[in-house]
Amino acid sequence: MTFTGSNILSVNQFTIDSIQTIFEIADRMQPYARRQKRTRVLDGAILGNLFFEPSTRTRVSFGTAFNLLGGEVRETTGMESSALAKGESLYDTARVLSSYSDVIAMRHPKSGAVAEFAEGSRVPVINGGDGANEHPTQALLDLYTIKKELAYHQQNIDGMHICMVGDLKYGRTVHSLSKLLAMYKNVRFTLISPRELAMPDNILEVMAEAGHRFTVTEQISGSLDADIVYQTRIQQERFSSPEEADQYRGKFRLNSEIYTKHYKPNTVIMHPLPRDSRAEANELDNDLNQNPNLAIFRQADNGVLIRMALFALTLGVADQVDRYECEVNWYSDKRNV
Amino acid sequence: MTFTGSNILSVNQFTIDSIQTIFEIADRMQPYARRQKRTRVLDGAILGNLFFEPSTRTRVSFGTAFNLLGGEVRETTGMESSALAKGESLYDTARVLSSYSDVIAMRHPKSGAVAEFAEGSRVPVINGGDGANEHPTQALLDLYTIKKELAYHQQNIDGMHICMVGDLKYGRTVHSLSKLLAMYKNVRFTLISPRELAMPDNILEVMAEAGHRFTVTEQISGSLDADIVYQTRIQQERFSSPEEADQYRGKFRLNSEIYTKHYKPNTVIMHPLPRDSRAEANELDNDLNQNPNLAIFRQADNGVLIRMALFALTLGVADQVDRYECEVNWYSDKRNV
Amino acid sequence: MTFTGSNILSVNQFTIDSIQTIFEIADRMQPYARRQKRTRVLDGAILGNLFFEPSTRTRVSFGTAFNLLGGEVRETTGMESSALAKGESLYDTARVLSSYSDVIAMRHPKSGAVAEFAEGSRVPVINGGDGANEHPTQALLDLYTIKKELAYHQQNIDGMHICMVGDLKYGRTVHSLSKLLAMYKNVRFTLISPRELAMPDNILEVMAEAGHRFTVTEQISGSLDADIVYQTRIQQERFSSPEEADQYRGKFRLNSEIYTKHYKPNTVIMHPLPRDSRAEANELDNDLNQNPNLAIFRQADNGVLIRMALFALTLGVADQVDRYECEVNWYSDKRNV
Repeated sequence: MTFTGSNILSVNQFTIDSIQTIFEIADRMQPYARRQKRTRVLDGAILGNLFFEPSTRTRVSFGTAFNLLGGEVRETTGMESSALAKGESLYDTARVLSSYSDVIAMRHPKSGAVAEFAEGSRVPVINGGDGANEHPTQALLDLYTIKKELAYHQQNIDGMHICMVGDLKYGRTVHSLSKLLAMYKNVRFTLISPRELAMPDNILEVMAEAGHRFTVTEQISGSLDADIVYQTRIQQERFSSPEEADQYRGKFRLNSEIYTKHYKPNTVIMHPLPRDSRAEANELDNDLNQNPNLAIFRQADNGVLIRMALFALTLGVADQVDRYECEVNWYSDKRNV
Repeated sequence: MTFTGSNILSVNQFTIDSIQTIFEIADRMQPYARRQKRTRVLDGAILGNLFFEPSTRTRVSFGTAFNLLGGEVRETTGMESSALAKGESLYDTARVLSSYSDVIAMRHPKSGAVAEFAEGSRVPVINGGDGANEHPTQALLDLYTIKKELAYHQQNIDGMHICMVGDLKYGRTVHSLSKLLAMYKNVRFTLISPRELAMPDNILEVMAEAGHRFTVTEQISGSLDADIVYQTRIQQERFSSPEEADQYRGKFRLNSEIYTKHYKPNTVIMHPLPRDSRAEANELDNDLNQNPNLAIFRQADNGVLIRMALFALTLGVADQVDRYECEVNWYSDKRNV
Repeated sequence: MTFTGSNILSVNQFTIDSIQTIFEIADRMQPYARRQKRTRVLDGAILGNLFFEPSTRTRVSFGTAFNLLGGEVRETTGMESSALAKGESLYDTARVLSSYSDVIAMRHPKSGAVAEFAEGSRVPVINGGDGANEHPTQALLDLYTIKKELAYHQQNIDGMHICMVGDLKYGRTVHSLSKLLAMYKNVRFTLISPRELAMPDNILEVMAEAGHRFTVTEQISGSLDADIVYQTRIQQERFSSPEEADQYRGKFRLNSEIYTKHYKPNTVIMHPLPRDSRAEANELDNDLNQNPNLAIFRQADNGVLIRMALFALTLGVADQVDRYECEVNWYSDKRNV
């Protein structure tokens, strides 16, 4: 695909080549995010950061990514006050708001709303999540994290084994990630969830058609040679009773004891965050915080790199980032990360 | 008037000369808004964008206009949390907040609040709407749009014919626009509204005193030679019953069929936006979206130019904008608009 | 203390030397805040302005201070939508959000929350207020104001006499300020409050141990030679009945008549703001607005200088501010303040 001027709406629009391009640009963004140097390539550009549904970390991650490229951010949060609430069509909103920026990152509670908005927009639109539908930058940062973590262990995505654990039915992130992984070769999926929250058939079909092996199970077993465990949250409201909730939580959470028993010593631990640290939920225990395989914060950091790459690509400046390079004047610990 | 250091509070403060100055500067802002080039003339300046009453598009339009001149924006939205809610006077708020910026754009739900705030402010204040009172930047962008659209058809504001349709009693925008138009020569006004929502007498007096002709009517008629039709929303709560609402809507809406029947082929269509696209309201039908005379989105775009001009003028840099010019590095479709 | 890379969490972390350093840097910030010149020393740096509890003026003051040094600001306001509300630990939030900025200013409704957050943060954290606990930048700007106001009258903090009036029990600002003042020599405190709202014993002990004299009283008396009167608000909810409220307000408010009767002609008047200007509260009357000793707005202005100094110090650029100096292009009245 040609990125310049394009919208980023769905994981379905990517090929393995376009993903490779995004990841190469993301790699080049690392020194800027680590404050070893900085760039003014988007100095004067304006991001319209339109979060019609609030999401602190995704919103700030987009905004920071744009600032790190030298650009400015104009923000909108919530939609009570917006014209959308007064009956304005998404087309009208897009026509008007897109004249206020050079690129738009948008989250909206309604499935399909971001694509509908993009129809009226005069600048590229990046989907920051539209209801239960898509959250392509999350899927890309998950895949990018997997690639980097495996590379650290001299491994590839081709031939790897991933366990996905928790709510695989409603978890938007595992669906999109599965679609992206299905583009690689010979991936093994172990899908661990309560039967009621199992991975939907259409995703299993994508896996099967691409020739991948998958196991659907309610037990953490057969996971001893997993390269990645991708833990997700099971929301309280998915259970029919508190008793059922208590029973399930014990089976699908991860802590040091379970990790040691069911996974190999260097299995990479991922989670889309936020994780619920309250005792009754605790899907990913704090006792793993010092485990070097816990990749959840590197995962969040990678989100900034992916979003920087997407901005640079859609605005056609991916090859000029280092032409506008300058020094970082101030103290930063991040340089040593 | 001298713009440097002045407040922009009301349309009443303008002369035809000062309006001409604003429009000339706005014209010069076009290449920056279209991303053909950019300027750093306000690099380092800070806009205090104080929206004590939310309004996404006006707020973002002010912020973007300031960014396009190279400046930074500090924003405040809503007033529940603000000191005003704790009994602080507007004078105190203004004294404190005005030390945090170089210029302030402010919206407030209370009539007169922006002028009261300006008393305490140590920097110029631009009124972004104070209740039912004033919204001078909207009036200026409306007038600027009329001027540009007419110029495209080799016409002038002097001698033109405008139809204003809908709620002319409570519609703040048509009042302010009428006052500005009254400064020109020999304008013909056709004022089409339900009798209960007719243009107030004080505005009619302004028209009459300046020697303009106006017709007050409940029927779209006599509009066949109109140069401009300015469509407004009639809010649901103005009607005494749903039946009355249904009856009126049919009479005061605009769509392709009505346009073809009642207006000449190049009558310019305006609307302050947002327009309600829900079937039951539909004051300006989407079937006009492809009509080249539909100026509503150009109207919104012009808002950025007018606000850029006002910032440049009040901060005394209107003549230096091109001295701080630089190239746009990134891809933009807007250059070809 | 070494400022570079440090958190600013509590007044307890300061020595008289470190305070002196902050004040010297704050002095050097004055020409930038007054727009006589500007600096780009933090051009490209990002402030994470995290206000989990809203506070317009403190939030904007931090943001403006960072902009005045050339940096960018990414903001978060409120916490309903945040991951914290979904059970995320402050440690996780800090790990994630700190990767989005170079320094963080944070307010949180819970005592100790900012220090807890700082544990997980990878960048310096400045406490913008954590519940009833600490608000160190307010204490520093109060002390800085006292120092400057006294210097104007050729006086020092050592040996001065301060009256603190109002709610001395729950008023966080007077507690922190008292701790800082106790580091100086021979300060005289007159503590005027209803008995139920008297200064807590632990603060009185700090004063006593450092050898300062203090008087606890319910009457404005013995204040005739005060150098400073620090007025605070007594919140309505502290009173057991409206009658009690009425009675107390009369005794603890300040207006021109009371000022003339109980204070010497150049006693400096301070207040942490906002002041409640409604007739029933009116803790500091508007009839003092033209009194040159009313320092409340200079106090608010000093907040920007203090915050600029803290950003410059924690990011290790305090000595480089003038190396990145440039001219102010636009009109400003502030230059003449």
